[in-house]
Amino acid sequence: MRNLLIPLALLAAAPLGAEDKPEFPAPSQIVGAAPAADWLGIAASDLLVMDLAPEANGKARRVVIQLLPRPFSQGWIGNIRKLATAHWWDGLAVTRVQDNYVAQWGDPDGEDAAKARKLPEGLAVVPESEYTAQTGEIVDFTNGMSEYQGEIVAWHKGDDYADVTAFWKGWPIGSNGLNFPAEWPIHCYGMVGVGRNMSPDTGSGAELYTVIGHAPRHLDRNIALVGRVIEGIEHLSSLPRGAGPLGVYESRGEQVPIRSIRLGSEVADLPAYQYLSTESQSFAKYAEARANRRDAFFIRPAGGADVCNIPVPVRRGPAS
Amino acid sequence: MRNLLIPLALLAAAPLGAEDKPEFPAPSQIVGAAPAADWLGIAASDLLVMDLAPEANGKARRVVIQLLPRPFSQGWIGNIRKLATAHWWDGLAVTRVQDNYVAQWGDPDGEDAAKARKLPEGLAVVPESEYTAQTGEIVDFTNGMSEYQGEIVAWHKGDDYADVTAFWKGWPIGSNGLNFPAEWPIHCYGMVGVGRNMSPDTGSGAELYTVIGHAPRHLDRNIALVGRVIEGIEHLSSLPRGAGPLGVYESRGEQVPIRSIRLGSEVADLPAYQYLSTESQSFAKYAEARANRRDAFFIRPAGGADVCNIPVPVRRGPAS
Repeated sequence: MRNLLIPLALLAAAPLGAEDKPEFPAPSQIVGAAPAADWLGIAASDLLVMDLAPEANGKARRVVIQLLPRPFSQGWIGNIRKLATAHWWDGLAVTRVQDNYVAQWGDPDGEDAAKARKLPEGLAVVPESEYTAQTGEIVDFTNGMSEYQGEIVAWHKGDDYADVTAFWKGWPIGSNGLNFPAEWPIHCYGMVGVGRNMSPDTGSGAELYTVIGHAPRHLDRNIALVGRVIEGIEHLSSLPRGAGPLGVYESRGEQVPIRSIRLGSEVADLPAYQYLSTESQSFAKYAEARANRRDAFFIRPAGGADVCNIPVPVRRGPAS
Repeated sequence: MRNLLIPLALLAAAPLGAEDKPEFPAPSQIVGAAPAADWLGIAASDLLVMDLAPEANGKARRVVIQLLPRPFSQGWIGNIRKLATAHWWDGLAVTRVQDNYVAQWGDPDGEDAAKARKLPEGLAVVPESEYTAQTGEIVDFTNGMSEYQGEIVAWHKGDDYADVTAFWKGWPIGSNGLNFPAEWPIHCYGMVGVGRNMSPDTGSGAELYTVIGHAPRHLDRNIALVGRVIEGIEHLSSLPRGAGPLGVYESRGEQVPIRSIRLGSEVADLPAYQYLSTESQSFAKYAEARANRRDAFFIRPAGGADVCNIPVPVRRGPAS
C-alpha cells in the first residue's frame, strides 16, 4: 500500500529459515524464530476470562487476563479468585472508559449502599505495603543485554520512575535499587489494576481497570496491579469514551454488560497461552532489537527503549 | 463512586479561589488557576479540521489538529496545506486502526495506480534531513523547573531516546545535546505523522496517522511529525481495530469516510483554541506536579515524569 507506515510486524509474519535470515532481523522475526524451549506455558488457573456481551452484530467479546505471580499483589489476587469463583461479576458492567488512560469495570451501583451487590465473605483487606514486594531475583539487566552483539541497551539504567527497570518471569518490574530494596509491577499498556478510594483504602479487587493509553507510571506503587490483558484488549480500548468526569458513562445504556468473569480453569474452550521467557536469549535479542531498530524501514536506531515499549510476546500455544 | 480509581481531574473541575487553595494542588488545579496571560492563542490557519462521517446515531465526529510551528517539518506541512486547500482528502477514509499504535487515513486506493487519486501539482519532496531541525532555543529545562519549591524534576535529564527532552512553544521536543545539535518533535499520544514507504521515501503528507497508544518513540527521527490532535482524538482512538496486518481494515465497508479536511481558516464555525505556554511559570508548576503527585489520592510521588506523561494543556478559549 502506497505511503503506508510500515512497522516491522508485516515483514515477518512467519519464522524465517536460516537460508533467508536477514542481516538485521526485526523484533517480530526474532520472536518468530525463538525455539520452543523459550516459550513458557501460562497455567489456566492464572488466567481470568471476561466475556462481555457480544457486539451489536453478534461478534463475541472475550478479554483474557493473566494474573501476576508471587510475590506480587497476592492479597488482591486471592480476592479476585474468590470473586471469580463466586461468579460475582456476572451481569455487572464496564462503567468507565477514559481516553488515553483506563477502561474500568465493576458494580455500576457500587456507590449506592442500598443497591450495591454484596461482596463474598472473607475478602482480605490488603495493606498499602503490598504495593511493593521483593522477588530476590531482580538484577540489573545490563549483563544479559551486553552479551548480544556488544550492544548495551539503555533501558536497564532505570528511568524517571524507577532506579532499575527489568523483566522478571515475563513481567515489567521496577526497583528502587539496593539500599531499601523494593520491587513493583509497572503500569504499561494493558496492565490490570485495582480501583480504590482515597488512601488508606487499597481496593478489594472487585473494581478493576486496564491501561488503554500511554503508560501512567505515576500510578506505580500507588495502586495495586494484579495482571495484564493478553488477548482481546481491543474489546476495551475501542469502546466509546464516557462523556462524564473521568470517562464514566453517563447512562446505564452506554455501559457494556459483563456476561461472566471466570478463572481460566473453569472455562472449557480456552486455548493454551505461552509467553516468551524474559530470561531467555531470544528475549534479550528481541529487547535489543526493539531498542535498536536496524531493519529496513528504519534509518536511525534509537539506542534505547523504555520498559513499556518492549511488550512481552504472548501467543496461543499447544496445551501444556 | 465506591472503589473508583480517582485521578485528580475530578478534584478540580474549576479554578480555585485563594480561600480554598489546597496545600498540594493537583496538576489540573494548577492549570485551572493559570492566569489568562499564560494561555496563548492558536491561529486558525495552523489548524487542520477533519470531519469524519457521523456515527450511526448521527453524532458528528470532528478531529482538530494543530500543525507544528517553524522550523519543524515545514516541507510536509506546506504539502498538507496544499492538500487541504485543494480539498484533496474529501471522500477518502480512515483505512487502518492498530491497537496501541496508530490510526491512519488517506487514499484507500493509494496502492492501485489506476484508481489512486491524483495528487495536487507542486508538492515538495522533502529530504530525510528534515526529520530534525534546530530552534536555537531548546535548553535543558532544569533551570526553569528548579525554581519551583526547590524540587528538581527528573524528566529534563533525557531518556532512552534523547539526551534532552523539553517543551518548546507548546511542543514536546527531543535533542541530542550540544555536540551535533539537532532537535525533533516527539511521538507522544495524539501526535500526527506522515505515512511513508521504505527509506529514502519520506511521504508527501497525503497519508497521515495519529498515535493512539504508548508513545512509539522508536519512530522519532524516522518519520515526519507534523502536528497533534487537540480535540476529538476519541473519534479515532475508539474506532474498531482493523483485522488485517498492521490493523488495516479488510473491507471498504469497515473504513470510516472522511467528509472533509480543511485548514481552520476555512472553517466557519470553529472555536478558538489556546495552549498553556510551556515557557510560563504555570506550566513549570504543572509539570512539577505531574512528576510529584502529592495530592490526596497519591501516597508516593514518583519523583519524575517522562515527557509524554506531561501532556500540554489545550482548551477552547476566547477568540483571539
